[in-house]
Amino acid sequence: MDYTNVSLFIIGTELTRGIIADRHGQLMANELTHLGYHVNRIVIVPDDGTLGTVLRQCLQESDIVILTGGLGPTSDDMTRSLVASIAQVELVKDEQSYQDLYKRIGDRINGSNSRQVYFPKGFRPIINPKGTAPGFTGIIPFEKNEKKCEILCYAMPGPPVEMHEMFYKRVLPELALLSGHQDYERDEFSTFLIPESKLEEACALGAEEGLQWGTRVQEYRISLYISGGSKERRLSMKQHIEAIVGIGLVEEGDLEAVDILSRYLEDHHLTISCAESCTGGLVSKLLTDRPGSSKWFWGSAVSYANDAKMDMLHVDKSIIDTDGAVSARCVEAMAEGIRRQSDSDCAIAISGIAGPDGGTDEKPVGLIWFGFASKTQPVVSVKVKISSFGRASVRRRAAVAACLLAFSYLNGIDLLDRVRSWQYI
Amino acid sequence: MDYTNVSLFIIGTELTRGIIADRHGQLMANELTHLGYHVNRIVIVPDDGTLGTVLRQCLQESDIVILTGGLGPTSDDMTRSLVASIAQVELVKDEQSYQDLYKRIGDRINGSNSRQVYFPKGFRPIINPKGTAPGFTGIIPFEKNEKKCEILCYAMPGPPVEMHEMFYKRVLPELALLSGHQDYERDEFSTFLIPESKLEEACALGAEEGLQWGTRVQEYRISLYISGGSKERRLSMKQHIEAIVGIGLVEEGDLEAVDILSRYLEDHHLTISCAESCTGGLVSKLLTDRPGSSKWFWGSAVSYANDAKMDMLHVDKSIIDTDGAVSARCVEAMAEGIRRQSDSDCAIAISGIAGPDGGTDEKPVGLIWFGFASKTQPVVSVKVKISSFGRASVRRRAAVAACLLAFSYLNGIDLLDRVRSWQYI
Repeated sequence: MDYTNVSLFIIGTELTRGIIADRHGQLMANELTHLGYHVNRIVIVPDDGTLGTVLRQCLQESDIVILTGGLGPTSDDMTRSLVASIAQVELVKDEQSYQDLYKRIGDRINGSNSRQVYFPKGFRPIINPKGTAPGFTGIIPFEKNEKKCEILCYAMPGPPVEMHEMFYKRVLPELALLSGHQDYERDEFSTFLIPESKLEEACALGAEEGLQWGTRVQEYRISLYISGGSKERRLSMKQHIEAIVGIGLVEEGDLEAVDILSRYLEDHHLTISCAESCTGGLVSKLLTDRPGSSKWFWGSAVSYANDAKMDMLHVDKSIIDTDGAVSARCVEAMAEGIRRQSDSDCAIAISGIAGPDGGTDEKPVGLIWFGFASKTQPVVSVKVKISSFGRASVRRRAAVAACLLAFSYLNGIDLLDRVRSWQYI
Repeated sequence: MDYTNVSLFIIGTELTRGIIADRHGQLMANELTHLGYHVNRIVIVPDDGTLGTVLRQCLQESDIVILTGGLGPTSDDMTRSLVASIAQVELVKDEQSYQDLYKRIGDRINGSNSRQVYFPKGFRPIINPKGTAPGFTGIIPFEKNEKKCEILCYAMPGPPVEMHEMFYKRVLPELALLSGHQDYERDEFSTFLIPESKLEEACALGAEEGLQWGTRVQEYRISLYISGGSKERRLSMKQHIEAIVGIGLVEEGDLEAVDILSRYLEDHHLTISCAESCTGGLVSKLLTDRPGSSKWFWGSAVSYANDAKMDMLHVDKSIIDTDGAVSARCVEAMAEGIRRQSDSDCAIAISGIAGPDGGTDEKPVGLIWFGFASKTQPVVSVKVKISSFGRASVRRRAAVAACLLAFSYLNGIDLLDRVRSWQYI
């Protein structure tokens, strides 16, 4: 049979009382997913025997069950007897485990400690180099639609240091062999400026037979995972998606928009400075998040008030009076102003309406002007209308767009073309 | 009937794939246990409909089920339809929720977003102040041993900021009443610059008989909840804790450090400007996160390079040559420089070693100098040594300290006294 569906059971009353957080579930789910298994549930139950109920309930849908916890010597550690009961076998003493434990704890093995060397009949103990309670593995026979099935079961102790040793050295290698998915591979992509629902639509449209995908929303981007098939086919799916959502918005690997810009600056030994209005320092914050940014980041003028634009950046009062602070001429003057003052190789300027107030029919909330200046290229400006999901969201997306557009500008790409291809910003 | 047994369901394929760890389970389990409920399982399932199976399976043993996740607009968000199917009712549109959502996102409500305002018939929506998908609550009828039973069901969205707001403000108070805690009251406090383990220790030391507490780690602070007893006793416990961790680090209510400063500026009609080095724009970003900050925020010089400190802030080259950029004289000159240029009422300056590189024996990673200037008070500077848990952490805590210290400065408090009382920064 195929072993595909895995159910994970984490046992511990300190978990269902919320005293500590479970870490085993994520750790196992992550490793098993990489091996191509499908984790269909992670169930956390108290030490009170609920395990028996939930374990029986999952047999219909699972090929493998993995349990952690409930193996110690105290009366509420009942994993061994519950598994034996479900497998309809008795608990029997394992002589080798008894001898091993005796060597470690001597006469203290008598009494409740001795429980730890009893296992469901037909099951095999898994040695525990870091603690007293061995794990065990074996087959739970089960009838599914009048057909005899076998469910592979692993039980490990709960303390992390014991569980990790057993999981990584014993359980995971066995499951890797069993899965036979030696060729299982996946790629991670980083997507920018695309709302989750639109990214999902684009993935569905760009999907290729036999490839799976998943997304994870992060603060400044959404990660996209494509798995299955060949590397070539995964990249081809990525290109289909990018053609739908917009050029430059889907990048290979695990990276932020600011990394795309900062790598370019580092590789080309260029320095940069910023003039920020509506983003209020966010672009500078993102750039200086990177260790070593002092090599290429000079500094910024956060020219929030109009006076600040004139005082710090020497923007002409006439530009602000005529065109306003959110305008092509203003961001061009801001970019030129900071670039000259800093003598940096290039500069970014941003001015827009972050909201929630301050929008007009002509200049609505979400309208952002970007200006770019450099020692070797003419000053350029471009505007983007960002859909407003609130001030924080507008500012975040404006900062991401600033990094992507600065990278495009430095590469000589027409910014208007690029912005026009962005479907869902 | 008695509502005693609670089952928690967390929905998200990113959880069963192990990409992220669940935090909701522990948070809810902890609060519900404090109220006297018995959490009999925490079940994490993918977005693929498995919820239907596991939810049906738990009805026999549960009085209350609480679900998080699976409420968004994308096709795999199916909590609404699964609950409707189990309750054997249809999904119906809630007109009020539709109007509320239309006000927020306009015509984008059409298409997949409109799913979010459909609920199982007879269920009541729970307003979502922080996002687009409302939660809902209602009764799932169920037959147990030929007896009609009712299971109370709550569903909340998965994103933490939305779920927390709904859980603490709506769901938990209802469940407190239901469990017979008529006198159940709680206060929320915001703590700054205290590591989680130290805060827990301080809570244990400052604890009062019969009061419970819990914490929630956020990006720039840790929230502390104290429940039970009288308001007076909860405040007395807060004071005990503050005496241990440091003055000004535990504030009543749900607020950020930047709010403490910005409220003061607003109330006193003062304007501010900043000169940031190691925080690279983060303080300005936090100040301008606040809508309406243009009323009191002039702008900042993010003077990252030494040249930028001299060019933008007129810091004397001799100060940098003699004392270095991370020094009392430098931050005082920075604060004076930006305050004069901006003619703002007060100014903050920050210069420090954020790491990971650049530390020396004399000026280690985590050493931060703060300078403050104002129209009415002499310039002041103070240094803080922040324990280094990495660059991002040092920068975050430096920005929080800057806001708290600026507030103290404006209130005429001795900064050295204040900093000396901070035990765990």
